[in-house]
Amino acid sequence: MIYETIVTTVNPAGRVHVAPFGVTLEPDALVIAPYRPSTTLDNLDATGCAVVNLTDDVRVFAGCLTGRRDWETVPARRIKGAVLKDALAHREVEVTGMEDDPERPRFRCRVVHEETHALFPGFNRAQAAVVEAAILVSRLHLLPMEKVETEIAYLENAVRKTAGPREWEAWGWLMDRVSAFKAGRAAAGGVEEVQP
Amino acid sequence: MIYETIVTTVNPAGRVHVAPFGVTLEPDALVIAPYRPSTTLDNLDATGCAVVNLTDDVRVFAGCLTGRRDWETVPARRIKGAVLKDALAHREVEVTGMEDDPERPRFRCRVVHEETHALFPGFNRAQAAVVEAAILVSRLHLLPMEKVETEIAYLENAVRKTAGPREWEAWGWLMDRVSAFKAGRAAAGGVEEVQP
Repeated sequence: MIYETIVTTVNPAGRVHVAPFGVTLEPDALVIAPYRPSTTLDNLDATGCAVVNLTDDVRVFAGCLTGRRDWETVPARRIKGAVLKDALAHREVEVTGMEDDPERPRFRCRVVHEETHALFPGFNRAQAAVVEAAILVSRLHLLPMEKVETEIAYLENAVRKTAGPREWEAWGWLMDRVSAFKAGRAAAGGVEEVQP
Repeated sequence: MIYETIVTTVNPAGRVHVAPFGVTLEPDALVIAPYRPSTTLDNLDATGCAVVNLTDDVRVFAGCLTGRRDWETVPARRIKGAVLKDALAHREVEVTGMEDDPERPRFRCRVVHEETHALFPGFNRAQAAVVEAAILVSRLHLLPMEKVETEIAYLENAVRKTAGPREWEAWGWLMDRVSAFKAGRAAAGGVEEVQP
């Protein structure tokens, strides 16, 4: 089972890195599988620990994909790490083993501490739509624009019907990114057209 | 902002009713707006209170739409009500005012008690897909079947990639209902065709 979370890690100098991750819950482990190269991978290698933040603030997901990585954190309780200040809950994990892979190594972790900070207010369809749109935005270079636009039009319904201010803000960041990508592709297409 | 939740109410005899509801969080109230006629409406009228259950067990959403309403509950703490046994959290609410409406009266409520029972494990895309599919299933009679099938095909991707056993079970119940509806419509269509 895969949960969409925000993984925070620190480098040996203590610098915090915030990144959205789909973590896999297995019966006896929590698995984080970062792509090579990535800061999360370097930090997991260096420190052997991470915080899995369980947040319903979808701005963090959309923000990390659109150049907004500076989210407030507080120190973790049991490991060298950082906890998102507004997470509903968090899990502090230690790496127990690493299955290497040229593309995407899998870090098997165990939970050494977990804590709930605020009440889960229920499913919000706009939040789910922002998470889906964030995944689309992370794959813009791989997907036909027509598919992206069809899916965004579908997802936007849930945003219009159920969003609050945080969801609208996150949605806006993602839509700006899609527009910029389309403009860039159009510009690149223009350049290609004048080439022989 | 609208959250998809499970609202439990009791009738004067103490019989528990479990129903999925999108509740609206306003700055100074939680609003439950049941359609007329409905058991939740009768119970809110009679008792003036309800429990808003915040659960990630999507089987309850899919189950209530497919004839499976018998979910285990425990007594509420501060009101005459019932709390879903496996909710991550719940809010006990009292009605403070009712805006009447011929179709869908709005019960404004205040939270008199809230409690977290388990850690929110993060967003799961399959859970969100089941919630969307449940909304589709509740509107089958209103939607073109082509739209339903296109959306289900889209939602199924997230289920295939991220579901656990509970999500698969809920998804299966909903897909059985869609199949039954299509079979029923085909049968009805057949009857119409032989009519003059």
